[in-house]
Amino acid sequence: MTLRQAQDGADVLDRVRFDANGLLPAIIQEESTKDVLMLGYMDAEALRRTLTEGRVTFWSRSRREYWRKGDTSGHVQHVRGASLDCDGDTILVTVHQVGPACHTGAHACFDVDPLTPVLG
Amino acid sequence: MTLRQAQDGADVLDRVRFDANGLLPAIIQEESTKDVLMLGYMDAEALRRTLTEGRVTFWSRSRREYWRKGDTSGHVQHVRGASLDCDGDTILVTVHQVGPACHTGAHACFDVDPLTPVLG
Repeated sequence: MTLRQAQDGADVLDRVRFDANGLLPAIIQEESTKDVLMLGYMDAEALRRTLTEGRVTFWSRSRREYWRKGDTSGHVQHVRGASLDCDGDTILVTVHQVGPACHTGAHACFDVDPLTPVLG
Repeated sequence: MTLRQAQDGADVLDRVRFDANGLLPAIIQEESTKDVLMLGYMDAEALRRTLTEGRVTFWSRSRREYWRKGDTSGHVQHVRGASLDCDGDTILVTVHQVGPACHTGAHACFDVDPLTPVLG
């Protein structure tokens, strides 16, 4: 299936504003708990795969390769929904997360370093 | 209050990995609903203000100025919590959102362009 078909004819890629490196930040949120699990980056091809294959794929900036989440760890992210933000420069992907999302073994990457801000 | 005092002596800025432009992506999540409201960017000074003043402050990349959310719109974000991710290159800030978060009037910036991905 093409991205165009997945989007009922609307061309998502025409609306996305990739950054100077050709990347789009992708916020991954667990559907069941609404926990924010992690932030990754997608280039156009990773975005196409994510929207058409039912599995979250990132572009790994450090390894410079596609990274389909869970292929080595088993901690797969099944796509449950997605939306662009108002200016098309961020995507929110809701997922069913298998196992922990974080390579540390934590449920979410944001569980490992809580801060103590002054509350407003 | 200094950032150091706000963090009980731990120096957050030593753990943050800003990008090549000196910016840190900041995911803003509503405390009460767990909705992801928006993504903004903070430089070190915006981060310091956010963690010590109880109000979310971004660095506006388009206007190239500090942007304390709500100062013109009234749609203030009161800080309720914050955490860095496992590699220190993203921050999640939970907030009490006054009014809509999005400049379009939508509750969240991700409400305006839902996609129809293939589900996994």
